[in-house]
Amino acid sequence: MGSSFGQIFRVHTWGESHGGGVGVVIDGCPPRLELSAEHVQVELDRRRPGQSRLTTPRQEEDRAEILSGVFEGRTLGTPISIMVHNRDARPSAYEQMRDVYRPSHADYTYEAKYGIRNWQGGGRASARETIGRVAAGAVARRVLAAAGFGEIIAWVSRVHTVEAKCDALAVTREQVEAQITRCPDPVASEEMIRRIDAARGEGDSLGGVVSCVAHGVPPGLGEPVFDKLEADLARGLLSLPACKGFEIGSGFEGTRLTGIEHNDPFFSDGERVRTRTNRSGGVQGGISNGEPVLLRAAFKPTATIRKAQETVNRAGESVTLEAQGRHDPCVLPRAVPMVEAMVALVLCDHHLRQRAIA
Amino acid sequence: MGSSFGQIFRVHTWGESHGGGVGVVIDGCPPRLELSAEHVQVELDRRRPGQSRLTTPRQEEDRAEILSGVFEGRTLGTPISIMVHNRDARPSAYEQMRDVYRPSHADYTYEAKYGIRNWQGGGRASARETIGRVAAGAVARRVLAAAGFGEIIAWVSRVHTVEAKCDALAVTREQVEAQITRCPDPVASEEMIRRIDAARGEGDSLGGVVSCVAHGVPPGLGEPVFDKLEADLARGLLSLPACKGFEIGSGFEGTRLTGIEHNDPFFSDGERVRTRTNRSGGVQGGISNGEPVLLRAAFKPTATIRKAQETVNRAGESVTLEAQGRHDPCVLPRAVPMVEAMVALVLCDHHLRQRAIA
Amino acid sequence: MGSSFGQIFRVHTWGESHGGGVGVVIDGCPPRLELSAEHVQVELDRRRPGQSRLTTPRQEEDRAEILSGVFEGRTLGTPISIMVHNRDARPSAYEQMRDVYRPSHADYTYEAKYGIRNWQGGGRASARETIGRVAAGAVARRVLAAAGFGEIIAWVSRVHTVEAKCDALAVTREQVEAQITRCPDPVASEEMIRRIDAARGEGDSLGGVVSCVAHGVPPGLGEPVFDKLEADLARGLLSLPACKGFEIGSGFEGTRLTGIEHNDPFFSDGERVRTRTNRSGGVQGGISNGEPVLLRAAFKPTATIRKAQETVNRAGESVTLEAQGRHDPCVLPRAVPMVEAMVALVLCDHHLRQRAIA
Amino acid sequence: MGSSFGQIFRVHTWGESHGGGVGVVIDGCPPRLELSAEHVQVELDRRRPGQSRLTTPRQEEDRAEILSGVFEGRTLGTPISIMVHNRDARPSAYEQMRDVYRPSHADYTYEAKYGIRNWQGGGRASARETIGRVAAGAVARRVLAAAGFGEIIAWVSRVHTVEAKCDALAVTREQVEAQITRCPDPVASEEMIRRIDAARGEGDSLGGVVSCVAHGVPPGLGEPVFDKLEADLARGLLSLPACKGFEIGSGFEGTRLTGIEHNDPFFSDGERVRTRTNRSGGVQGGISNGEPVLLRAAFKPTATIRKAQETVNRAGESVTLEAQGRHDPCVLPRAVPMVEAMVALVLCDHHLRQRAIA
Repeated sequence: MGSSFGQIFRVHTWGESHGGGVGVVIDGCPPRLELSAEHVQVELDRRRPGQSRLTTPRQEEDRAEILSGVFEGRTLGTPISIMVHNRDARPSAYEQMRDVYRPSHADYTYEAKYGIRNWQGGGRASARETIGRVAAGAVARRVLAAAGFGEIIAWVSRVHTVEAKCDALAVTREQVEAQITRCPDPVASEEMIRRIDAARGEGDSLGGVVSCVAHGVPPGLGEPVFDKLEADLARGLLSLPACKGFEIGSGFEGTRLTGIEHNDPFFSDGERVRTRTNRSGGVQGGISNGEPVLLRAAFKPTATIRKAQETVNRAGESVTLEAQGRHDPCVLPRAVPMVEAMVALVLCDHHLRQRAIA
Repeated sequence: MGSSFGQIFRVHTWGESHGGGVGVVIDGCPPRLELSAEHVQVELDRRRPGQSRLTTPRQEEDRAEILSGVFEGRTLGTPISIMVHNRDARPSAYEQMRDVYRPSHADYTYEAKYGIRNWQGGGRASARETIGRVAAGAVARRVLAAAGFGEIIAWVSRVHTVEAKCDALAVTREQVEAQITRCPDPVASEEMIRRIDAARGEGDSLGGVVSCVAHGVPPGLGEPVFDKLEADLARGLLSLPACKGFEIGSGFEGTRLTGIEHNDPFFSDGERVRTRTNRSGGVQGGISNGEPVLLRAAFKPTATIRKAQETVNRAGESVTLEAQGRHDPCVLPRAVPMVEAMVALVLCDHHLRQRAIA
Repeated sequence: MGSSFGQIFRVHTWGESHGGGVGVVIDGCPPRLELSAEHVQVELDRRRPGQSRLTTPRQEEDRAEILSGVFEGRTLGTPISIMVHNRDARPSAYEQMRDVYRPSHADYTYEAKYGIRNWQGGGRASARETIGRVAAGAVARRVLAAAGFGEIIAWVSRVHTVEAKCDALAVTREQVEAQITRCPDPVASEEMIRRIDAARGEGDSLGGVVSCVAHGVPPGLGEPVFDKLEADLARGLLSLPACKGFEIGSGFEGTRLTGIEHNDPFFSDGERVRTRTNRSGGVQGGISNGEPVLLRAAFKPTATIRKAQETVNRAGESVTLEAQGRHDPCVLPRAVPMVEAMVALVLCDHHLRQRAIA
Repeated sequence: MGSSFGQIFRVHTWGESHGGGVGVVIDGCPPRLELSAEHVQVELDRRRPGQSRLTTPRQEEDRAEILSGVFEGRTLGTPISIMVHNRDARPSAYEQMRDVYRPSHADYTYEAKYGIRNWQGGGRASARETIGRVAAGAVARRVLAAAGFGEIIAWVSRVHTVEAKCDALAVTREQVEAQITRCPDPVASEEMIRRIDAARGEGDSLGGVVSCVAHGVPPGLGEPVFDKLEADLARGLLSLPACKGFEIGSGFEGTRLTGIEHNDPFFSDGERVRTRTNRSGGVQGGISNGEPVLLRAAFKPTATIRKAQETVNRAGESVTLEAQGRHDPCVLPRAVPMVEAMVALVLCDHHLRQRAIA
């Protein structure tokens, strides 16, 4: 019962990396919204493997089909079912995983939880699971755009120890997409590519940080006390594979400031109340304040590496694992559309929730 | 509709800082568990203001009453209603807040969302709201203890720039409670006290980090993909007042490692599969792996300070605010039982969820 | 986890017949609505025992306190906690129930489910539990009234075999309240009183049917496919103590008609599309069509009777039970406000749900 | 957001009668359960049109595909996605419905709610929507069978005014399936066939009643106060197309008895506490008592008839409708597997809920 997200704009994802396919059912999408498979495909293409030399050479076409909920190019208000068929499965590549637990993967924990596991791939723990979310996020963006929200823009702000230099509020989608790293700082991007190439060469992997800004979020979104906007964002991001940390606004670094240094002074900007600084990250007391929503998420280095590792098999025997298969040495570039999708899902749900009571 | 938490062990909190009281209804607590008001009171006493010179001198007695769901000292399986009456209200102290938005507080956002706000205190954004959570957390601990879980121990690991030195796995409740800072490192604790005293003297405030470890969590808790254990923990912690960041296991720092440095090798420890390191923080693929669950949460410096600040009033006019009232210059010591309560609520809920399908 | 109702206008009830009290937390009520304890008290007074010679002579004052969520006479948008303290408890009257299962009561099933039971009264199975619903229903009516809905009027349309003659669409609250039976047909009411008096004299009890009409429900409420308006109404009514059946529109009798006899022809009434007949009961395909919503609920004869009955005790021994205590020989008059409350809760929730997507 | 059912065994249906297909995602199914497409197909075949001369001659093959959640013939504990592709669509047959509201159909209300509607068929209001439920119900039956529950058997107990004579507790699946009416009384079945044939000949339609018994339900299922077993059953059945009424146990007729006539005396049957009669229908206080669960549901005559009817079009003009297309003159035989599916879904969900807290 853990595959649902949202209260009103409610998404249900399904599918393993190996099997008939993966998909999502979106329940609660407002009616009469223009929606085509192409709107979804654009985001899936940013998520899919094989899009650059940085990512796994697996070629997954990931063609989205909208099976219900849309009629003559418009949403009906009924559940929207979107599916992507699985292809390019090479179960043989996973034969060695039938009995061996990959370190820092979910093989052991799925087995511990369910007493069974689809060993022909990562099952639900595969990055392939995120197809459903990214598809749903594409629909959520349509709802937000129709309601006048601004863009949601994520980018790679760090790979390993290579930090991007950029003004969070000025980053554009074009700058991000211009780099195969999805790091809008071309200099840092160059160095990231070198590091990723080196890690691949050594059979190793790298992690990093994705930053995200949501522009044009109106004041009033988020529901105290448990469904605070930052709480739902944190849940959404931590539910992504490999995510180990979340910050909003000043985050961990902000705790090194004093109150007077940290507080955001209010001022009047014509009709609007605004803040001079935005250490709050666009959220105060769990509710958006009209400033850009700013957040960061930490993604650990990819668990699948070729280097030899100590582990155990299902019989509890010590074994050495040298993983085969085609994997990303760094998930960060592909994590960018996933982060945007989760932010879009949270904002869309809270937008509709606010409409209910406003 | 944002005041509920959990799927099976489901808590609903209510109450403003000013009004009849605050409380919680717990629905889904297993029957026949020994429970008395004293079990709840112990945790409320750790949370309440006025317990040391570090915290606000407001004296809130916060006496818990169990109104339903318990009969002859045992839970009935029916909703447990726990209430604390409000006392010591000094609405006059808040008179200046009737029209002025305190910077980095929730005054403006509540007004933006609801078009109305209880200005006689922080309303639902007050730390007083956490009484319901801490009370529910005390009940959740009873469930976990009866099910053989180990202790949940949180502590202050940083205030401002003062970092505690301690072995996360060895920290005891006694060490934590021995210091009024709730920092188990006595040397760091001394320095923290100095900094907090200085901040109070200047009418300023400090933030910091709370760390937490949950011992004895069995493998198998957490439900992919959206209700991953770390996702629910992140939501729980980010829903606490003033929390701006969350990390599990290696968190943000772990992203500076490579895959081979970061992965946790498995080994067999008798019947159990264990990991040699615990950068995963006890969770892999969203499911507990039997190792201690390790997390950290960032709390910003208290927004309420005496120093003069620029802000606006409801009419949109620029005003200077010099706050009065009695407030904590540093919420960290009182955040410790709140963090433990949220971790207990998440673990208890997932424990029951796992029983449903196991 | 079964004590919650609604998706957006979400109510959580708590409390046993014996213990500190009973109450409800309402989460999701729109802000800025005028609300006072008096609005709630009016409905509680219609529900309480001892209001006429037809009901149990127990005097329960049932004084409602609003503990949160209201400020200066208006709702804040935050959870509204309403409580009624328990009084007039006579646990001694229940001493015989400590070990004996009352036939057609919930004593045995609570024991089977929870392994424990508050034998000092009916626990959660007591009619006293409905106080929380009726209080929440009073708030829901405020929301509906502010949104331009018409009145919700329920009445006793049958007691035992005595059927009321009245035009469902013309019944007024005044007519209903004018009779202690809450049957607006004075002739039938007289005969109902005779029957109820006779049943009381014999230590027996009677059941019957409550009818209800909701006027001024706009088209478009209800969410296919599982949250159809009639599905949520059915759930709401069947969740009332002693309710054994539900019908909407033509109900069971309508199944004796043919399609051409049963279908409701559409016609244009100015701007509005209306139906010439209303066998649909105001709902088509799970969505309101703008006609009055018409429903009926069956309530079995009160299970508590003084007549000797065969039963068993907790040891499994055969015993004869002759119940003591003060009970209603017929719950129908008091069921009227309960039915109205459940209908109000369903309509209010669907009204807010429709606002979210409209 | 109305297309989900259940709290732990949670099903999400999707799909219109015209479009890519219809299906269901089941989240919360226990792992390691044997499951194949054949288990699902058996129930879909009982539901599909064209199975006898009584039902619509439309031939829908309704071939179930399991797309996820099953591996090597066993459930994984992850979401189970089941899909049936749409075929045999004849949009032209619906051309006349583009602008005309069919009486007692959902055309008008969908338009009123969503401002858009898929006029090429009944959309979500089509009986085709029930494919997802029936598929999920087949999975629920597997869970229940593995947990030792008895059979769930529904049958047609009345068509129009023709009442079946049979002993509810003795009806077998074989007797039901032996008659194309699914009425186990062969004499009544004959007469029902005559009536249905006559109605078809006249372009008219008939309704009736489906009865259902669930054998071998253990005591303790159902959660007071809103998720009482009968409340969830009522919701489930009223959510079926054309259902207008629900009764459990003695239902509406039981209200004509007095308390002493209606109460079910308890007795000891070896280790078990049982009741001599079962007017409670297997549920007391919202919780199963171990007796067979007995219920009945009313289905109105099919709204689609060939006879000329008065109605209006989208422009509000009066028109006469003479429907074309291929429709069931009586849905009762096909409603039988739908009723069983909903009962299975409710029992399965409450079975898992009880495991969580027991």
